[in-house]
Amino acid sequence: MREFVKAHPDTPGGLVGFPTIGEFVASLKLPRKIIILVQAGPATDAVVEQLTPHLDEGDIIIDGGNAKWTDTIRRERDLKNSGLRFVGSGVSGGEVGARFGPSLMPGGDPEAWEHLQPIWQAIAAKVDPDTGRPLEGAKPGKPVRGGFPCSAYIGPNGAGHYVKMIHNGIEYGDMQMICEAYLLMKNLLGMEASAIGMVFQDWNRGRLDSFLIEITADILQQADPITGQAFVDIVLDTAGQKGTGKWTSVNALDMGVPAPTIAEAVFARCLSAIKEERVAASGMLKGPQAKFDGDADSFIQALNDALYCSKICSYAQGFQLMREAQKEYDWDLNFGEIAQIWRGGCIIRARFLQKITEACSWDPDLANLLLDPYFLQEIESAQVNWRKVVSAAFAHGIPVPTFASALSYFDGYREARLPANLLQAQRDFFGAHSYERVDQPRGKFYHLDWPDPDRPQCQV
Amino acid sequence: MREFVKAHPDTPGGLVGFPTIGEFVASLKLPRKIIILVQAGPATDAVVEQLTPHLDEGDIIIDGGNAKWTDTIRRERDLKNSGLRFVGSGVSGGEVGARFGPSLMPGGDPEAWEHLQPIWQAIAAKVDPDTGRPLEGAKPGKPVRGGFPCSAYIGPNGAGHYVKMIHNGIEYGDMQMICEAYLLMKNLLGMEASAIGMVFQDWNRGRLDSFLIEITADILQQADPITGQAFVDIVLDTAGQKGTGKWTSVNALDMGVPAPTIAEAVFARCLSAIKEERVAASGMLKGPQAKFDGDADSFIQALNDALYCSKICSYAQGFQLMREAQKEYDWDLNFGEIAQIWRGGCIIRARFLQKITEACSWDPDLANLLLDPYFLQEIESAQVNWRKVVSAAFAHGIPVPTFASALSYFDGYREARLPANLLQAQRDFFGAHSYERVDQPRGKFYHLDWPDPDRPQCQV
Repeated sequence: MREFVKAHPDTPGGLVGFPTIGEFVASLKLPRKIIILVQAGPATDAVVEQLTPHLDEGDIIIDGGNAKWTDTIRRERDLKNSGLRFVGSGVSGGEVGARFGPSLMPGGDPEAWEHLQPIWQAIAAKVDPDTGRPLEGAKPGKPVRGGFPCSAYIGPNGAGHYVKMIHNGIEYGDMQMICEAYLLMKNLLGMEASAIGMVFQDWNRGRLDSFLIEITADILQQADPITGQAFVDIVLDTAGQKGTGKWTSVNALDMGVPAPTIAEAVFARCLSAIKEERVAASGMLKGPQAKFDGDADSFIQALNDALYCSKICSYAQGFQLMREAQKEYDWDLNFGEIAQIWRGGCIIRARFLQKITEACSWDPDLANLLLDPYFLQEIESAQVNWRKVVSAAFAHGIPVPTFASALSYFDGYREARLPANLLQAQRDFFGAHSYERVDQPRGKFYHLDWPDPDRPQCQV
Repeated sequence: MREFVKAHPDTPGGLVGFPTIGEFVASLKLPRKIIILVQAGPATDAVVEQLTPHLDEGDIIIDGGNAKWTDTIRRERDLKNSGLRFVGSGVSGGEVGARFGPSLMPGGDPEAWEHLQPIWQAIAAKVDPDTGRPLEGAKPGKPVRGGFPCSAYIGPNGAGHYVKMIHNGIEYGDMQMICEAYLLMKNLLGMEASAIGMVFQDWNRGRLDSFLIEITADILQQADPITGQAFVDIVLDTAGQKGTGKWTSVNALDMGVPAPTIAEAVFARCLSAIKEERVAASGMLKGPQAKFDGDADSFIQALNDALYCSKICSYAQGFQLMREAQKEYDWDLNFGEIAQIWRGGCIIRARFLQKITEACSWDPDLANLLLDPYFLQEIESAQVNWRKVVSAAFAHGIPVPTFASALSYFDGYREARLPANLLQAQRDFFGAHSYERVDQPRGKFYHLDWPDPDRPQCQV
């Protein structure tokens, strides 16, 4: 600690270290506000346990890690019983957010929030209140003054960490979709990394403008410092994960909310991880030739449409999850505000979120983002291209799990009559699970005694 | 109980009831073998708790319910500590299996299995040992004698229930895939239910021959006893679920094994459940017209190919899960034997399983079913049609989440170079998560200090 403080004498605001937790706690004004940012899980519990003996009633512990929201619910309840206040605050923005202002998603004790609000809003990233564009000009440790701060109280106990988890699930989707667009340009159009980077640079000037598109453009145009080759070409194609995308998918399955596109993004990382198996399989399993004979420029435009439409579906799934979770946990989430505070500072910040902000304020009870007039219109005009891209990918043997899953979600969501009638009949056949009828009110259950060779068959 | 026994005087073998658990237990020979078939979860624990005070050392409790394998691991451990033996036995076959012989997947104490083996093999469904086809001629309570019994010891503690869960996950996939084939015939080819039923009847004579295809043919040709219409047309399109497909998907996510197709099948049921939302959305979200102008017969043949190829991928995912789970739980699963005991009695019984049996005995260490020469050849010759079907579905706005997910899995598995290099570079950019290099051995991690405007960019 002493060495660390000595090594950073110029830290804005000054860096103060303490040799013991007791001395650290004693140095703070009441009610104390202590932020911990350690690895989620047992480490967080260990630090909380070390702190609590030194604290006074009303003191506030803030966990800024990627905690599982159910852990935050438990910690908040336990600490409340000890007279302490606990805030689980989602923090997104990575290294850049830490230096220039992150997006903050605090949840927990509402009175504690009043003490934190000025601090949280001061350190948060800022966006232009009208356009939603991030405000430039922040310096390390000094976010810009003025503007709309990317922080708002999310709700009681685990609400903040839940919303952060959904943010990350959406991030998994965004990243995988960008990868699919990249793969199609690389394998189908035969483009070099830097040329693909310029396409993303161009896309970043339009409706796809976002942090992830921006860094993708940067990455694809980087040279590898060792070989001088395109950097991305020397990076091994195995993606790691730290669990929040998985949590989102498991939560979707647990609540029975369709979020297949986010789950496909998680599974795509799993498939990337078995590199050796894939290399072996690639020599054995044949597929079609990826030979493109159309117009590359219009295919790139179609790719932009596919990415945008898929993104809308993935966000729609994330928002459906939050809608269901608030019922489950008795929260009262403000979806417009959530979209607002994601507009700056965080990994998924995007011009697109301004549109979601507008959709939610236009109709706070919107059943699904897909039904918002703006998004509805966007998909209506872009879907021909979206379908073209997905069909081309399948025809040429290029995996597009999230593009395809999003399109199946869209087509399933707008289908008044899915084939689940047959599935439910199967369940009734072999397991006597019963079925409802289209000509009777919901909640009346019927069963046929299968198989009955004497029951009349349809006349063909 | 007394009324129930009185009402069924002709039960084969005779039905004997006891007014108390103590009298029931006292009536049995040592070591006692007590089968419980109650709702999975707390009910199972409650019955086990009621039984144990009456039991003697070495007695055997068998849980035939759809228990979660982790519960079975816990129960087996706890009962072993009390000197009792616990067997968790998967049972599949529904009503028909209960009467004519089910498929049985017992796991737990291996010595207990020796006591159960003669009973389990007697009551199990039987298949022809050479062809793997189910033997006909069973009567209620009297499975046929001779033949290969669909029961084998799976492994210690929760292995039997784990394998049963995978069976069910695969079943979710099979059912959803059949639904997608049905939907395409109904919505794209405009066929009536009974005509579609005849297609399934025809398919049931070929490589798709299976219980689920057979009952689908039956169901689609049934008339509704109330209206006389096609039965399936009056069934509401909302599918229920009891959790085993969800468990399979959650387990896949937990272990990091790609099983996207099974997860898509679960999510398809979730989407079916929000019927009212879909009906509302169907009036607002426009899609392409489902107008088919090709040759219907060859499209139906292509559908058969799509279903078969998707099925291979879904089973491949299920077997990958078992392969990973056996490492996690220190089991030594015999995949060939598992495929063997699924050939009769159970919901997923299929001629196809004979091919898996052969694949596993041909190479017990097969890395993935897709690499078996038979399946490899099947997909190689059928994939053009598979791609055609999926492309047609997307072009015409018909949701095919499992067909598409299976095809993306296939194309991803045979891709030596997935786009996860870009994804990992993104992770390194915003979260300093580091990356590996293609020109260095695995396990060496690198990090670039992003963003660095002075680092050279690629020359375009």
